[in-house]
Amino acid sequence: LNRIKASGLKLRFCTNETQATREKFVKKLQGMGFDISVAEVTAPAPAACRILKERSLRPHLLVHNDLVPEFAEIDKANPNCVVIGDAAENFTYANLNEAFRVLIGMEKPVLISLGRGRYYKETDGLKLDVGAYMKALEYACDVQAEVVGKPAKTFFESALAEMGVSPQQAIMIGDDIVNDVGGAQRCGMRALQVRTGKYRPCDENHPHVKPDAYVNNLAEAVDMILQQL
Amino acid sequence: LNRIKASGLKLRFCTNETQATREKFVKKLQGMGFDISVAEVTAPAPAACRILKERSLRPHLLVHNDLVPEFAEIDKANPNCVVIGDAAENFTYANLNEAFRVLIGMEKPVLISLGRGRYYKETDGLKLDVGAYMKALEYACDVQAEVVGKPAKTFFESALAEMGVSPQQAIMIGDDIVNDVGGAQRCGMRALQVRTGKYRPCDENHPHVKPDAYVNNLAEAVDMILQQL
Repeated sequence: LNRIKASGLKLRFCTNETQATREKFVKKLQGMGFDISVAEVTAPAPAACRILKERSLRPHLLVHNDLVPEFAEIDKANPNCVVIGDAAENFTYANLNEAFRVLIGMEKPVLISLGRGRYYKETDGLKLDVGAYMKALEYACDVQAEVVGKPAKTFFESALAEMGVSPQQAIMIGDDIVNDVGGAQRCGMRALQVRTGKYRPCDENHPHVKPDAYVNNLAEAVDMILQQL
Repeated sequence: LNRIKASGLKLRFCTNETQATREKFVKKLQGMGFDISVAEVTAPAPAACRILKERSLRPHLLVHNDLVPEFAEIDKANPNCVVIGDAAENFTYANLNEAFRVLIGMEKPVLISLGRGRYYKETDGLKLDVGAYMKALEYACDVQAEVVGKPAKTFFESALAEMGVSPQQAIMIGDDIVNDVGGAQRCGMRALQVRTGKYRPCDENHPHVKPDAYVNNLAEAVDMILQQL
């Protein structure tokens, strides 16, 4: 990261994290020694807030308690849409029924989902991700959710707009073949897959997505990018 | 009902009830004065039990507490499938994650759903039905559930087999245009829609399903059937 920043290249961190505010997320990374600030992070919740403001939407929130502060400035009275994130323990029977009732009570239900993940792994085992609950509400209300976050095209476009560069001028580095690499490429960017994190060898035979290159780790990605400047 | 029984016609009650055993369901109807016995009821749970036995499946159950006795004789050790019903308060975050982990741990996940309803109304408001939770697990595990209960063809075929009659010899009376009328017709039966219960005037303009006739209530349906004997 330091070498990228020293080179003068513009940089954004694109995360699908929806269990914590950017503040909390950044503090965690800073604690690990990374040079990162909140202003450099593109995350689903602030992207959703932009959409809510643009379209005068007042959300009913079904999100993680720690994410609620991201919506502090948003009017939530008399809701006319539902925003769903990875609410974890907040995915109770009562809360799901409540979100459903808000949606089904609208003439034209609007459901905004902070991601479409199927599941993820925590220390105590696999957990259903927001995508599964999104599907439940989609089916019950016969609507299609608007997904904010990777791999949505609008999400990458937000990051590009914040940097003021075109897709052709940008390159994505990520470990997720579909959400990072596929999403960025569909947006017109080039993309590198690192062979770390959630990378799996079978990703290299993915039926639809082929990265512009593979690198063994982030340092190799930086080497490759700086060599081509 | 008494007139149908007196006529010598064979009779089955087909219900999608999965919040209680047939025993409890029948007692409720007997309490209202109906001449009905457990042996006359075709319901999703016993239909699922037949499938489980036939295919040597051992279920992990995600169902309503009151439905568990229907699975008393089924081996549930070391599960190799998941059976989901309208579990109501049992649809907790922990229980959903547990059912998901059982499914995703299988080489070829088998999910059996006791219905595909979207939602239903109770005295305290609308509730998500089993279909919504089925969709969540389907998406997370990339599987398609096998649905037992109306409008599944196999469900109507079970009822016909229990009576020992062919679809052409049988007629369905129901208030649900899709689950009762559409399901029975797809099975080769004729079907009457009663203009009571969950019937809505807009059902008469349904884009796909047209009953063989409408009747104002069950008594009129019986009149019509007995006249044609």
